[in-house]
Amino acid sequence: MSLAASLAGELEALFPDALITDRAGCLVYGYDNSRRQAMPDAVVFPQRHEQVVALVQACLRERTPLIARGRGTNTTGATVPVAGGVVASFERMNRILRIDTANRFAVVEPGVLNGDLQAALKPLGFFWPPDPTSSPYCSIGGNLACNSAGPRAVKYGSPRENTLGLRAVAGTGEEFRAGYYTSKGATGYDLTRLLIGAEGTLALITEATLKLTPLAPAKRVLRATYADIESAAAAVSRIMAQPVTPCALEFLDDEALRLARRHAGEIIPVAGAMLLIEVDGETDFLPAAVDAVARAAAGDGLLEWRAAADAAEVEQLWAARKALSPALRSIAPMKINEDVVVPVSRLPELIGGLKRISHKYAIPIVNFGHAGNGNIHVNLLYRPEDPAQAAAAPDCLAAVFDLVLALDGTLSGEHGIGLVKREFLPRALDPVTLALMQRIKAQFDPAGILNPGKLLPDGGTAHA
Amino acid sequence: MSLAASLAGELEALFPDALITDRAGCLVYGYDNSRRQAMPDAVVFPQRHEQVVALVQACLRERTPLIARGRGTNTTGATVPVAGGVVASFERMNRILRIDTANRFAVVEPGVLNGDLQAALKPLGFFWPPDPTSSPYCSIGGNLACNSAGPRAVKYGSPRENTLGLRAVAGTGEEFRAGYYTSKGATGYDLTRLLIGAEGTLALITEATLKLTPLAPAKRVLRATYADIESAAAAVSRIMAQPVTPCALEFLDDEALRLARRHAGEIIPVAGAMLLIEVDGETDFLPAAVDAVARAAAGDGLLEWRAAADAAEVEQLWAARKALSPALRSIAPMKINEDVVVPVSRLPELIGGLKRISHKYAIPIVNFGHAGNGNIHVNLLYRPEDPAQAAAAPDCLAAVFDLVLALDGTLSGEHGIGLVKREFLPRALDPVTLALMQRIKAQFDPAGILNPGKLLPDGGTAHA
Repeated sequence: MSLAASLAGELEALFPDALITDRAGCLVYGYDNSRRQAMPDAVVFPQRHEQVVALVQACLRERTPLIARGRGTNTTGATVPVAGGVVASFERMNRILRIDTANRFAVVEPGVLNGDLQAALKPLGFFWPPDPTSSPYCSIGGNLACNSAGPRAVKYGSPRENTLGLRAVAGTGEEFRAGYYTSKGATGYDLTRLLIGAEGTLALITEATLKLTPLAPAKRVLRATYADIESAAAAVSRIMAQPVTPCALEFLDDEALRLARRHAGEIIPVAGAMLLIEVDGETDFLPAAVDAVARAAAGDGLLEWRAAADAAEVEQLWAARKALSPALRSIAPMKINEDVVVPVSRLPELIGGLKRISHKYAIPIVNFGHAGNGNIHVNLLYRPEDPAQAAAAPDCLAAVFDLVLALDGTLSGEHGIGLVKREFLPRALDPVTLALMQRIKAQFDPAGILNPGKLLPDGGTAHA
Repeated sequence: MSLAASLAGELEALFPDALITDRAGCLVYGYDNSRRQAMPDAVVFPQRHEQVVALVQACLRERTPLIARGRGTNTTGATVPVAGGVVASFERMNRILRIDTANRFAVVEPGVLNGDLQAALKPLGFFWPPDPTSSPYCSIGGNLACNSAGPRAVKYGSPRENTLGLRAVAGTGEEFRAGYYTSKGATGYDLTRLLIGAEGTLALITEATLKLTPLAPAKRVLRATYADIESAAAAVSRIMAQPVTPCALEFLDDEALRLARRHAGEIIPVAGAMLLIEVDGETDFLPAAVDAVARAAAGDGLLEWRAAADAAEVEQLWAARKALSPALRSIAPMKINEDVVVPVSRLPELIGGLKRISHKYAIPIVNFGHAGNGNIHVNLLYRPEDPAQAAAAPDCLAAVFDLVLALDGTLSGEHGIGLVKREFLPRALDPVTLALMQRIKAQFDPAGILNPGKLLPDGGTAHA
């Protein structure tokens, strides 16, 4: 497929010096961290809201797919242009338009990097809670599109809890605003949260008003090691049942520990499982808060409880945790990385069930993640070159999802659905819920030009 | 209008001992705290989800309006059956189905009173943050329908930030679930938040999974009095710009103080304005937190800063604040009670502008409310029996809304739109946003039977 000549001309006029149509250039905007790939017909780099309006209208006229792209760090193929068309990369629309601490909000363009925003906010004593592991490289627009969270969500919430309002362009080419500049609002339906997590299938976000939170003055990083995974999972449950909420409560299973130790050395223990815990708060109160979490962490199977001695040790612990995902990629380049979520009290059953599934299908599974939210990154280290594993992988993955759903969990905590999980959506959602989502999609994007083939099972393929 | 005979028969079969059709009985389900009134043709009292499904399907067959009702405490006429039809009062569907502290959620039926849930949670060390002033009398279902918040929202958020999932029945008669049992989820569009604040126009909520928050161990109540309103408003801005977020930051203007003093005696000072501030946290840290707020509260115009001496004084202060709305009702039975919201830094401009509007239209205006969210209850004490005031009231109200919108605010912070503000919605929302809301409404309720004449300007009148 290639672009209609009229559209190609319009893109040239709209995006002087901000248009790629050659094959080599297009290639690098056709993949993301899912290892899926497809060729777009063109890549454009909008810098202003008005350009985005004109872009959507131009694509709509030619019924050409239009895929919004942040920085391509997502793991589900949500930005892969499976039906060709135009990729709109927001990397050049990256201004922080306003930081207003008196009103606790910031207004940003979608291409602002999460880490750049945090760096701008820190000297002012504020932060924006969502902090994906890819924070230095991922964009706010992508965070919003996928409802991406990160470790701090256990205490501070995901983008849906931390966004006040949006400016956007629907698939109809119409521009609109949703939400407020205030921390409260009850003026009509909540379109802000509807767009967050919609993976660019309803509208393109061109501006976001983000709710800011004061930075806690002090933080302590702790690690608790356990004899086995079940003891660690039970400790997570106890920690979340008491009043002091950690600002991170990360879990690593034995395999993840082995891997992290290889990266970080002896700071990572040999154990059945480890919790990496961060507690923040007022300086004077922090010791009492740490004590409260320590009491809850104690119990059967606890091997060691240890506070990071200094900033260097904190750095090392987090670096080891953050290295896990790339490290697994190097072991198993085609690993399947899920981010299932279950109620925290069901974590022992989840972890036990995953062991059985791994054994049954003879596919190694490594688990780590945001245990305080019950959000576990389940890594199926399958090697497609092994015919037995290749044959077993689909059933193995289906068994993982069936387990999660049986435990009152859901398919994704923070990665979204994208390309790779859409066929599983009907297992997680009842038919009426799914049909309502389809009908909502049809209102925002009746021609199905926005990110076709994503999120919804038969989600609006463009009629090009 | 009266019910079709077939529908009347169905209701009798569906709701034995739970159906009212006589005039006297219907009358008391035809009004709410808006002082608007209309007659329903029948009132039913569902107790089970399946009854609600059958009820919606029966009403749909006859194209008969169906109005969900909690306890009628809302101030916008959101439950007034302006097109007749059936009122479904959820007062008997009031079981707390599950409290799960390990997973920090509670599952409730919509008729559970907010206060009853709080009472059940307190011994377990948890609470559900939304706490409207009417908490002992209002239902969770009503709180969700209107996104009702209350003082604690300044620190802990509104229902949209504190609800994990819903079970509901759309206007199509189809039942569905939205959301999760987990604190994180990225599996499709966010229908949970879409239903919250939709005032029963999209679906009837039959079950809610609410996110619980640990109770802070200690709390301190403080009052700061100021020489004038502008000084108090500036203090609110300073308090919200520093890191310690109070769990209540209430504002009373001079008129509200006079009124509160009449109710509560000398504990309420004579002053230009007062802030009632609550700070919660760990026992040991509380003095430092109070100091931080005190530093921010200090400044031009501060007359007195005082901590409540004991529980009795706390009780008195809050009783005086909570008595304001009913007290104003006794002075001006037909008062117009708005709950506008502006960014907190714009509060001085709002309060100044309201003074000018009050003077221009010769209608007394009393202001109090949740200043930490910029959410002010603006009470127009107009007397319809005064011809000049009656003539001026509509323009006066329009001027209030124009002021609020010019300050980047919105029409409602927590009361919703209902019957009384729907004509103003096009001032607050751009035409595309409004059209998208209409199209969403049409998907959930194509026949327009759910709460016709509410929220949206021409929001789906039933075609009966």
